[in-house]
Amino acid sequence: MTEENRVTRTIRVRNLQIPGTLGRLLLAIADAGGDVGEIRMIQQSHQSMIRDLLVYTEDEQQFERVLAATQANQGTKVLSVRDDVLELHQKGKIAIRSRYPIDSLATLGRVYTPGVAEVCLKIAADPTLAIQYTAISHLVAIVTDGSAILGLGDIGPIAGMPVMEGKAMLMETLVGLSGVPILVNTKDVDELVNTIANISLTFGAIQLEDISAPRCFEIERKLQEKVDIPVMHDDQHGTAVVTLAALKNACKLSGADLKKLQIGQVGLGAAGQAIGELLMSYTGNTILGADLSSEAVGRFQKHGGTPASLKTVLAESDVVIATTGAPGLIKPEMVRKEQIIFALSNPKPEIEPEAALSVGASFAANGKVVNNVLGFPGILRGAIDSRSPRISQEMYLAAAEAIAEHAQPGEIAPNPLDKSLHQAVACAVARKAFEQGLARAEFVPYIET
Amino acid sequence: MTEENRVTRTIRVRNLQIPGTLGRLLLAIADAGGDVGEIRMIQQSHQSMIRDLLVYTEDEQQFERVLAATQANQGTKVLSVRDDVLELHQKGKIAIRSRYPIDSLATLGRVYTPGVAEVCLKIAADPTLAIQYTAISHLVAIVTDGSAILGLGDIGPIAGMPVMEGKAMLMETLVGLSGVPILVNTKDVDELVNTIANISLTFGAIQLEDISAPRCFEIERKLQEKVDIPVMHDDQHGTAVVTLAALKNACKLSGADLKKLQIGQVGLGAAGQAIGELLMSYTGNTILGADLSSEAVGRFQKHGGTPASLKTVLAESDVVIATTGAPGLIKPEMVRKEQIIFALSNPKPEIEPEAALSVGASFAANGKVVNNVLGFPGILRGAIDSRSPRISQEMYLAAAEAIAEHAQPGEIAPNPLDKSLHQAVACAVARKAFEQGLARAEFVPYIET
Repeated sequence: MTEENRVTRTIRVRNLQIPGTLGRLLLAIADAGGDVGEIRMIQQSHQSMIRDLLVYTEDEQQFERVLAATQANQGTKVLSVRDDVLELHQKGKIAIRSRYPIDSLATLGRVYTPGVAEVCLKIAADPTLAIQYTAISHLVAIVTDGSAILGLGDIGPIAGMPVMEGKAMLMETLVGLSGVPILVNTKDVDELVNTIANISLTFGAIQLEDISAPRCFEIERKLQEKVDIPVMHDDQHGTAVVTLAALKNACKLSGADLKKLQIGQVGLGAAGQAIGELLMSYTGNTILGADLSSEAVGRFQKHGGTPASLKTVLAESDVVIATTGAPGLIKPEMVRKEQIIFALSNPKPEIEPEAALSVGASFAANGKVVNNVLGFPGILRGAIDSRSPRISQEMYLAAAEAIAEHAQPGEIAPNPLDKSLHQAVACAVARKAFEQGLARAEFVPYIET
Repeated sequence: MTEENRVTRTIRVRNLQIPGTLGRLLLAIADAGGDVGEIRMIQQSHQSMIRDLLVYTEDEQQFERVLAATQANQGTKVLSVRDDVLELHQKGKIAIRSRYPIDSLATLGRVYTPGVAEVCLKIAADPTLAIQYTAISHLVAIVTDGSAILGLGDIGPIAGMPVMEGKAMLMETLVGLSGVPILVNTKDVDELVNTIANISLTFGAIQLEDISAPRCFEIERKLQEKVDIPVMHDDQHGTAVVTLAALKNACKLSGADLKKLQIGQVGLGAAGQAIGELLMSYTGNTILGADLSSEAVGRFQKHGGTPASLKTVLAESDVVIATTGAPGLIKPEMVRKEQIIFALSNPKPEIEPEAALSVGASFAANGKVVNNVLGFPGILRGAIDSRSPRISQEMYLAAAEAIAEHAQPGEIAPNPLDKSLHQAVACAVARKAFEQGLARAEFVPYIET
């Protein structure tokens, strides 16, 4: 996920029908630092063409320069500027909906008193029936304390709400889960854990989101000890799963065997630590790891990693995975020939893929490719459907394999909006839970309904 | 709300086209103790008619008797028996839905990274914008600890989930709010309060639901002190508002002036206490009150009530409101001529309305008429829309007046599925918040969209 572009606007332009007008305009926007996304034709005449250009910039100032460049382009007239993002966020992006209408007093009597009492009594007699007769079977808490929202840092839980709603949208859209944002107004580890444990009966799973390291490790562990539903910190495990999937495909494309390569990591925070653990459990080999924090290095070592300096990691590794948050940390002269470089920090990577490739890297990717949305929906759906009490490392490995297999030939990652991808991930995760004896339900492959 | 009928089934019958067959069948079902709700015609021929009968009974044994009586009715053949209630509860009654589809990578980029970062930063700079750009503006926590679910008692939070989902359906259907069930797995007052306060930033209001007395009083008070969004225990205030509304109309129909009548209460639990406080604040007069618990009587007295015996309440009151949970407590010989009797306990009232009327009561009603669903949706919508930090007694009084005014001539309560009722309640509550200086938003009448 990238925060490289923080301002999104739609510029509506009328271009005269003079060949090259649009091309010159796009070059001018790029020169001013803007990225152009979707280009949509709105209206066409003999003289001119009206188009909506979706433009991303790093900040408002840069957008002003892009707008000025657009206005200055010969043959172009700016008709309007819209902030579609803000428009889409009006009143939020999610809502609780009834699954069928209450259209008569008879229905009211079935879904509410008096009819509902029968269902309550059935569940009181056998609480496992709650999975069958309540929404607990598809409700997922999306929990944040706002301490590490996107690449923006500790902006507080309320400001994190649009991200949590975005996750909930993706859960519903991709795998039919009901994500419920839960903003927690405490930074105390035990209070956060107790708060969420106290309300955990409401949910089929808990997704921790954008919680800062090292607190996130303790929170995830303590919460999982207290509840018997899956707890997953997406910034850790979602990132790790997708990284492994992309790495498998990068190795396939470059003809290498991941299990025979020396892997090195720069940055051992939430994502780095989880990536290290998952890769070591996949390859069976140790990983070289560098971090400025001795606490982080100690944790990495405890899980089988080998401490090393940044210089050593770069010099001795066939694969380098960087998750430092330090843009430009890796200089081109540090890159070895034939090295695979995943520079995953957002908003700016440790080294731009083009720069790494130009000095001989065999493969290079940044955080735009390794996108968590490839992983968490299917992982959660599979874990919930199997009624596994937790998500094992093997279930994460199965998810990574399913994601890797779903990429198109020549690509390292699949299209995140492809529902068959998420279905495959859910099936792989549920099947693994079943094989491991973690499942508390029959294995029924998840099929979108 | 009544729990009188705890089993709901649909019996499909084929009746021969012989005059009186359906009539005899309905009498036979009534004789066996069943109540018949909706009767729907499914198919008609010259010889016979297929109908679905919705039948309520107190328990499974009684239903078996009803079914046997149906099978024994001359000219009737039972084709099938369905449990529509359980069918409707499969996988729960609510879901989180996206408010628009994520149908392209461009939309994904607007609602999630990178676009969402802009909205997060805006809210971080000015948290009041969360009302505008997130679902906080319509999310309501529906909180229970499962300690007093319907008339069923302490059956635990999970078994209470179908009721919480029912409330959420009603909120969405009637006023467009997004009710989120929150099951709290603790009975400790302070832990419950802290848990909900810790997640309160997520919501525009908190509805406490089916929490037992006397804990409910302390929980509501302590939670409201900790948060600056409205907290409402529906079993208290929803019931009180609807009781006042019905009482106003009962007085209008019997030509009495409520402010000049002596009111007496039997039962001073959650509902009784709140009814007493609201009626005293409406009439300005004290109320006679009886309860077996000296703690409850003390609380009632502290709020201006006058302790009395059951006998005295019945003997000296023009209006008697009973909320004891003790069926048959009021004997016909205790009823005074021209008395108004509200016997509200569920599943069975303290005295059946027919019995009270037969010995000279001028008006009698039970818990089926005084239904909370008339009140809570509009009260919450109005409180949220005005961004009032709490719901004042005056706002509850305004809600009661709006409900009373919405009843059809000759009726004491309106149709709960009439959306214009809830719109009127929301407007009245928001306007009162505005008049009292509690509102933190401009007054905009709620209109369903």
